Amino acid sequence: MQEIKLQIKRINSDYSIFIGQSIIPSIWDMFDLQNYSSVFIITESNVGPIYLSELKHQIRKVYSNIDINEYTFEAGEKNKNIDTVQKILRKLAEVHFDRKGLIINLGGGVTTDIGGFVASIYQRGVKFINISTTLEGMVDASVGGKVGVNLDGWKNYIGVFNQPSSVIIDVDTLDTLGEREFVQGFGEVLKHGLIFDSKYFDMATAKKVNQYTKSDLVEIIKRSCEIKAKIVEEDEKENGIRKILNFGHTVGHAIETLSFNTTKPLFHGEAVAIGMIAEAKISNLIGNISNEEFDQIEKGIESSGLPIRICGMNYDQIKEIMIGDKKNEKGKIKWVLLNSIGEADWNIEVDEKFYQEAISYILN
Amino acid sequence: MQEIKLQIKRINSDYSIFIGQSIIPSIWDMFDLQNYSSVFIITESNVGPIYLSELKHQIRKVYSNIDINEYTFEAGEKNKNIDTVQKILRKLAEVHFDRKGLIINLGGGVTTDIGGFVASIYQRGVKFINISTTLEGMVDASVGGKVGVNLDGWKNYIGVFNQPSSVIIDVDTLDTLGEREFVQGFGEVLKHGLIFDSKYFDMATAKKVNQYTKSDLVEIIKRSCEIKAKIVEEDEKENGIRKILNFGHTVGHAIETLSFNTTKPLFHGEAVAIGMIAEAKISNLIGNISNEEFDQIEKGIESSGLPIRICGMNYDQIKEIMIGDKKNEKGKIKWVLLNSIGEADWNIEVDEKFYQEAISYILN
Repeated sequence: MQEIKLQIKRINSDYSIFIGQSIIPSIWDMFDLQNYSSVFIITESNVGPIYLSELKHQIRKVYSNIDINEYTFEAGEKNKNIDTVQKILRKLAEVHFDRKGLIINLGGGVTTDIGGFVASIYQRGVKFINISTTLEGMVDASVGGKVGVNLDGWKNYIGVFNQPSSVIIDVDTLDTLGEREFVQGFGEVLKHGLIFDSKYFDMATAKKVNQYTKSDLVEIIKRSCEIKAKIVEEDEKENGIRKILNFGHTVGHAIETLSFNTTKPLFHGEAVAIGMIAEAKISNLIGNISNEEFDQIEKGIESSGLPIRICGMNYDQIKEIMIGDKKNEKGKIKWVLLNSIGEADWNIEVDEKFYQEAISYILN
Repeated sequence: MQEIKLQIKRINSDYSIFIGQSIIPSIWDMFDLQNYSSVFIITESNVGPIYLSELKHQIRKVYSNIDINEYTFEAGEKNKNIDTVQKILRKLAEVHFDRKGLIINLGGGVTTDIGGFVASIYQRGVKFINISTTLEGMVDASVGGKVGVNLDGWKNYIGVFNQPSSVIIDVDTLDTLGEREFVQGFGEVLKHGLIFDSKYFDMATAKKVNQYTKSDLVEIIKRSCEIKAKIVEEDEKENGIRKILNFGHTVGHAIETLSFNTTKPLFHGEAVAIGMIAEAKISNLIGNISNEEFDQIEKGIESSGLPIRICGMNYDQIKEIMIGDKKNEKGKIKWVLLNSIGEADWNIEVDEKFYQEAISYILN
């Protein structure tokens, strides 16, 4: 068993991210669960049937008397809403879960987003840990403390900043992901390389994604977590540098939203991949990066098996959603753009002709 | 115009409480509202018709171009729930309220609780100020940063800790309160005296409550805010001393809940008054305070016009609700009890015979 411990310094406390292979079965004696009055597991209908009973069994092997309750919600982004939150809160109240209990979120980004938010607002906040079971969750949602849900069509409009007590990442759980779901996790991986670490971008595009060994994956995930942790540590509340994590997301968020009304909805990581092409193109058009750098970016993303173009939508639709994005103020789009591979800048306004051309580029 | 500025030191920032007479009309140039992208006022159906249009007029006199939107919810504790929160969030999204906007909560404790919670979770948190229009709101809810709503019958089960940017207390708004609503505000006032400052208890029980002048009231409210601010500053998240603010609330909360199913629901401050009698009685029965001190407490509360007894409920009903209180762990009641008038201790467990006798005392 490998195990890597990252510390994210916070105002009041640190937290550890445990990354390795086959660590879930053996990790429980590290958590001193007897200090908690009970455990409550939040999971969803795809992940629950695979892991839930085994997880409870593993916890009970170490803490035979601990009270464990659970809630399994219907999987899917469409259930990431206040109704699901309210149902979980009710279940917590019904089982008399108290302030000294521990919530364990078991699943991908949707689960850790919902579960982290529930933990943040139940009785004004209880402790929680995340067990990430998707690549995207491991490299993105599990670190950083953005928790929350959607408000109707407004993505992530409801939420708070709140960090978990710990994150557990076991690469064995990746075995149960579908091919497309696994590959899309590389959207955020490559983003971390592009905005912060050119060597990491090279490393993460060196092989076809299904040729990585488990220990390669541990290294890749570890580096993504390190990068994200470093950025979040500097700017938890996203007043400055944390905004660079939105690279690819302005266009990406818009096409992801539009894709939900098509027969082929995009995964988040796929939308971000296409969004990164568009936003790298803007960076290129305004002279921030060279044609060669742009080509390298496009090839790297493509070779990972991620999409780099989208059809069936038009510029005006995309623009309308971008203007309403909560990251923007007073209708002005603030871009995150690359200065080079491995370095990004934020809050950049550019002439519409540049982003119109860049978006045309991905629309064919 | 009198004006008192209190600073509550926080991890990242301070905030001011402005207290005085007739200050609402003239205070707006102190807030630099042009630094905000827009203003959104949250109020309820009793308070809105009295103050809302005047407030907008006063703000527009100073900031003629500012965009002001509003939401008025149906008044009453029963609407302090997630549905009201969701409706306000939707309205915020619909008017494109962004992260640089300012929310103004205009009303009593229910409004500042709901509005503060909305501001805490909309787009992961926006700034808000409270304009308290009830005595209880002025001395309790407006200070301290406990914001949130009820979950079905579970009181304040949903929420976070989040401090306002400022609090505005204008004693002129007390003129529109009904007699009973005004008097009940003294429940929390007297509590602050009993747990923290015996001289303040003497001062706040020196006259009949309707004999206080406006400037007396400014002094009383100021001292309550100071006491609460001092306690909150020391222990924002209620891990220790802040628990003393729950004096009177263990029994008080239970009888308040039960009273909702009777023909005469209690106001919160009334329930707390009766709860303080019961909990002072426990303090007396276990030998913490003398018979003379207990009598002084009872007379002080009674002379304020607050109730000191309750009929139509029994011990078992009260006990059941107390056991389920979220302040307790694993079914054990943790009491806040007095050591003397002006000093309290927390997390005290006592034999059931004491609290049974004390509760019998108030039930006749």
